[in-house]
Formats: sequence, structure tokens, C-alpha cells
Amino acid sequence: MRILVLNSGSSSLKFQLIQLPEQSVLAKGAIEEIGKEKSIVTFSSEAKEGVQKEMAIPNFEVGLTVVAQWLMEGTIKLIEQPTDLFAVGHRVVHGGEILKKSMLATPEVKAEIKKLFGLAPLHNPANLKGIEVAEQIFKGVKQYAVFDTSFYADLPAKAYRYPVPKEWYRDYGVRVYGFHGTSHKYVATKGVDFLGLGEKYKVISIHLGNGCSMAAIKDGVCIDTTMGLGPLAGLMMGTRSGDLDPSVLFYLHEKGFTVSDLKESVNKKSGLLGIAGDNDLRTVLQKRKDGDKDAALALAIYTYRIKKYIGAYIAALGGIDALIFTAGVGENSDDVRWESCEGLDCFNINLDAELNNKRLANTRNIAKESSVPVLIVPTNEELAIALEVNTL
Amino acid sequence: MRILVLNSGSSSLKFQLIQLPEQSVLAKGAIEEIGKEKSIVTFSSEAKEGVQKEMAIPNFEVGLTVVAQWLMEGTIKLIEQPTDLFAVGHRVVHGGEILKKSMLATPEVKAEIKKLFGLAPLHNPANLKGIEVAEQIFKGVKQYAVFDTSFYADLPAKAYRYPVPKEWYRDYGVRVYGFHGTSHKYVATKGVDFLGLGEKYKVISIHLGNGCSMAAIKDGVCIDTTMGLGPLAGLMMGTRSGDLDPSVLFYLHEKGFTVSDLKESVNKKSGLLGIAGDNDLRTVLQKRKDGDKDAALALAIYTYRIKKYIGAYIAALGGIDALIFTAGVGENSDDVRWESCEGLDCFNINLDAELNNKRLANTRNIAKESSVPVLIVPTNEELAIALEVNTL
Repeated sequence: MRILVLNSGSSSLKFQLIQLPEQSVLAKGAIEEIGKEKSIVTFSSEAKEGVQKEMAIPNFEVGLTVVAQWLMEGTIKLIEQPTDLFAVGHRVVHGGEILKKSMLATPEVKAEIKKLFGLAPLHNPANLKGIEVAEQIFKGVKQYAVFDTSFYADLPAKAYRYPVPKEWYRDYGVRVYGFHGTSHKYVATKGVDFLGLGEKYKVISIHLGNGCSMAAIKDGVCIDTTMGLGPLAGLMMGTRSGDLDPSVLFYLHEKGFTVSDLKESVNKKSGLLGIAGDNDLRTVLQKRKDGDKDAALALAIYTYRIKKYIGAYIAALGGIDALIFTAGVGENSDDVRWESCEGLDCFNINLDAELNNKRLANTRNIAKESSVPVLIVPTNEELAIALEVNTL
Repeated sequence: MRILVLNSGSSSLKFQLIQLPEQSVLAKGAIEEIGKEKSIVTFSSEAKEGVQKEMAIPNFEVGLTVVAQWLMEGTIKLIEQPTDLFAVGHRVVHGGEILKKSMLATPEVKAEIKKLFGLAPLHNPANLKGIEVAEQIFKGVKQYAVFDTSFYADLPAKAYRYPVPKEWYRDYGVRVYGFHGTSHKYVATKGVDFLGLGEKYKVISIHLGNGCSMAAIKDGVCIDTTMGLGPLAGLMMGTRSGDLDPSVLFYLHEKGFTVSDLKESVNKKSGLLGIAGDNDLRTVLQKRKDGDKDAALALAIYTYRIKKYIGAYIAALGGIDALIFTAGVGENSDDVRWESCEGLDCFNINLDAELNNKRLANTRNIAKESSVPVLIVPTNEELAIALEVNTL
């Protein structure tokens, strides 16, 4: 069966056409800068060399039409007509407290996604738009919503509640929701299978991309995660601060900063960018190599916070059977992995320098023998969404 | 020698007259509700039963005069004249980045304390006032400032810098300063001596009072602490939230909350009070016993956050030689100690139920044999200040 996976952002549209049970990607692509004068279209398929071109894509409707036509066009013909698709799976960032599992995007579900716009203002409106447009263009095909937050449906209250006035939870839904759930679930499942851990395990997964988060997973259930109400808390990220003493905001507000200045700064001008002047980890690593002290400090904070959360989550889990690194930085930066785990022999976490430095694409263990396994598991959110849709 | 230790708050004045090297408290007392119609005066001394009365104390000058007269009065006569005091030691909450050690309160030092009013608006103005009044009343006696923040003077940058725009640090001094330093230093030193650990050690101290904080201490140097720019971050407290996703503030601001509402709420209406409706831990424990679910949740969050920081700090230290509980809750609540350490056998932290439940006043180890020592060390900030003054 063929499942089209769509990830609709505020001005971008990414897709993969996935064949199950083979788990093969028949085609994938992205349209970026939708609505700008020139949008960037990048398509590729197993059968045909990639297409890369600039063209005007004024809106989602046109974007998804272009995708559909390309998939049906003569030389590729991955589908003859929309209904050849088994389903379309949509990434939806926020499912709130009601939409706890992946599900068919019924009118009721869409209304609920809309109610959550306030909690995920950058993502949910685009995600919903993606569903609505796909319903028009792929008429008669089932549309499924797969939520980033579903993995956190069973967080214990001590992990999801904030110690703030309880009315904030009751009246405004202020709690930890968590993000990157599809990725954490996918790599944890992969890692547990790889190690043959069975059904009883304590795993910590570390997703390091532009956004960064960690999850503590016990016997298949996520019991804690670093992101909170929004995707800002926890680890230091490319441009986001992660954990921050709330006093900083009150103090700077008294100094004349506006609330929107502060919001913009902690979301878009902090993290690696705030300290090292660049939000790309590779550039920051290079700068450090060149002797830049700010870059060295940025990396020190970045890895120190990962290290502390490893300890915190071992405490929360009461032990650890495996540590998993994933996503762009997690899969590719040996420095970040090494420095995050340095000095953790007290937990029997010991990386093997040679294994850590090797660049490979598969799931592998980079720990020393008889230490806690430390895995690199390449994440694949699109495949995870397709697999999720398939179980429904 | 006799040292008068003063802790001046916004509407209160606490003092102890301490004899060194005997470390005996010759007299102590407090004046509360200064400036109100009726202030509450509580004095006691070794030589004489306590005084407890209500009287009008309009300001600090009158308050400290009352203290001085009482110390010199006929039946006690602990000092004949002010200059019988070796020195006055003042607790000053915020020393910023300049005042890194305890020191004589010279005009330059006082000017610096004043510059820090913005960073400690509730404390530094009162602390400075205390120094200025004491200079008048105890003329000719040396006045020393002992800073809560001094213990954190050697925090590494990766622990004290926030991943926010670096100008915030450069232009506004936004960094981790830490608080309760005098207490953490005192109990850590006591604990290390008690265990005979020598000069190389990894200790975590947990100060649980109305305010709560933890410190990770390596070989005498504090390398991390839970409070930050202000005394709000980190652990859940009586009325303070501790760590909180900054998104919560932005989100509620969009819902119509003002910045001052939010500031007031996270400082004065959160923590135990926010969840359980009461900021006194003993009451919350009783409520839980009576079946109150909110109280149970509040305690679960409270101890879960301590537990996670224990793990985080073991990671930061690369191991642990001793864990120390102190201050009102830390010294007196067996439930809190037990629940904070539950499930930490992965770190070889195992409390002995019987030892944990015993109510004693001395420093003691409540861990099982051949586990990591877990100490209760009664804190004594006044004595710590006197000892600090004595070393100058």
C-alpha cells in the first residue's frame, strides 16, 4: 500500500510517498517559501532523478496540486489517480489533552485541532490547512492526523503539571505537552528492538536537530520530556534558549524590554545563535576549532545541559538500559555525543571513541563493551507517521 | 570575641550575638512587622528567659536601638557598650559579580550593594539599610557584609551563563547568581568534616525551607545551583514555582494576564500553595494524609523535582560522595527525604527507614550501610556568618 505523508508548515510543505510493508520511500520532496515570489521546489523519486526548480507557488492549494500532478505524471506515475493512495498521514504538532492518539481527521477532530491554535500558533494552523487542502486534492482518500504530542499521553501528573496556580491548568490547559514525540517513539522502538530489550526497559532518547528535546521512556511509556507547554523549554537549541529562570524575563521587562521583544529573543535569538552568533551547530564547531571563545562556551552549555538531563532522567527512571542519540546533530556530531557523555562513567556510560567517530547511516551501538549501550538511531518521522497510519 | 549577626529584611530584623571560638549563641531575637501598628519583638538569651511582646517599632533605627539597649541592659549585660562587639556581620543577599567575598562594608562596597537593588529588590535595600543603621547605633564597630552569592563565585561559565542573547549578560548582568550560599557552604563543610572526606569530594546539598535550592559542590567549590538570576528558579517551593517553561508566561500574557500578575503569581501563589492551597509543608502533608488529592500531587511534584536534580548533579559532578538535607523541611520531614530518594538505588542511594524517621538535632547519616551517605545537617546561617567574619 502507498501512504502519502504530509508535513505542512507555515510556508512550507514536505511530503514522502511511502510503500508499506516494504518501508520504501517511492518519492519525496518539499516546497519552501510558499507565498513568496519564488518558491523552491525539490522533488525526487526512486524512479527518476530529482527535480529542483524555482516557481511561484502562491498557496497550499497550488503547492499540493503540483505535488499530486508530479506523482501522477507520465514518467513516474507512482499513482494513477488520487484514490490509489491508501491514506494521507498528516503531521499535526499539537493534539492537546483530547486528541491523545493518531486518528482519522473527522470534522470533530479538525475542530479540536483548531481549538489548539493558541497553544501551537506556528504549527497547528498550517497543519490543519494541510489536511483541508489534501481533502480537496486527494478526494475520497482517508486523511489521518498523527500528533507530535501523542507519545506523551501517559505522562504522570508529577511530570506534566507545573507548580503554578492550579487554575492555570484547569482554565487554560497549562501543562507539559511535549514535542518530537513521533521521533522519540520511533527511535526508542528501533533501539529497543536492536538491543532485544523486550518489553521491560528504561531508555533515554535525545533528539538534537534545530529543535532539541529528550524523553525518558519506561516499558514503552514516556514518563518525562524536556519540552513543555511549547517547544521552548529544556535543552539549548539552535535559536531557542531552553530552560530559563523566569526571573530573567521579569527583570528585563522592568529594564524596558517589551513582552514581544522577549518572546522573539528567547525563541529566535537565543540558543547557539545567542551565544555564538550562529545557529548551525557545524558552524559553531568550526568556530570553536578556530579559537572562538563564544563558540566554545555555546557548546559547553549545549552539552552540559544534555548531560544534566541524562542524570535527571536516570533518576526519574530509576536506572538506564540504553541511551539513544538521533536527528541531525545527534546522528552526525561525534563531538556533541562525546562531550555530552564525558564524565558519566559513574552511570557506566562510556563511549568508544572509535565507534563514536565513525560515520555510518545505520542504527549502531557506540558504547564500550559492558557499558550501558549508547545508540545512534537515524530518525525518520515520515516513515513513523506512515507506520502509525497503517496501524489504524 | 562577640559578633553580632544581623539579618535585615523588608519589615523584619533578626539577630544573634555569637561568642567565638565557643560558637555559643549568647542571645538572639527578632523584630517582625516593623512599621506596622504593632511590631512583634522576640528576644531570648542564655542568661535570661525570653521576652515576647508587641510594641510599636516604626523603623529600623528604633528596632536596632531596642536590640542594643536590651543587650546592654542590667540583667543581661552581654555587652557594656557597643564597642565591646568585635564586629557586626550582615547578611547581604546579592553581591553580584563584583562583591565575590565577604568584606568590610566600606562606602565603595555599600555603593556596589546599592547598584544591585534591581537584581534583589526585596532584599538588598533592606540589607543596606541594616548596615547603615548599625553604623550609627554601633559606632566604632566594624561592619561586615556576608553575601549569599559568594559561594557561587567560582561557578563555571557553562553553569552560570544562560543560552540567551549574550548582550543580556554583558549589558544587564543576566546570569546565574545563586542563593542560600551561606547555608550550602556551612552544611557542606560540616558534612564533609563529619564524614572525614578530606579535600576531594563530590557533595550535593539540598536546602528545603520556604525557599528551596540545591548545590553541587566539588572539592569545596560550588559548580552548580538551582536558583538563578533571582531566587525563583529550580525546585518547587512554598509559594514559588521553581523551573517553568517560559512559554507559559507568554501564553498567559496573550490570554490577558499582565506581567505584574504573572510575576506575583509565580513568586507568591505558586509552589505548594498553587497546587495544594497551602504553602506550609506540614499542612500539605496532613492534607495528603486526609486524602486530599491536590496535596498528594503537590508533594509528588515537590519530591520528583528534587530527585531529578539529584540525578542531574551526580551527572555534573561525575559521581557522589554524600547527599545532605538541611533547613526546616530538609531537617524535619522524613516523608520528603524518603520520597525524594525513593528509587535511587541505581545511584546506591538507600535511606534507612528507621534512621530517617528519628527526630534528632545533630548531624547524622540516615543511609543504609555501604550506601552513599545521606546526611541531615542542621543549618545555622547566623553562625556561618559569624565564622565568616572571624576569618576576615
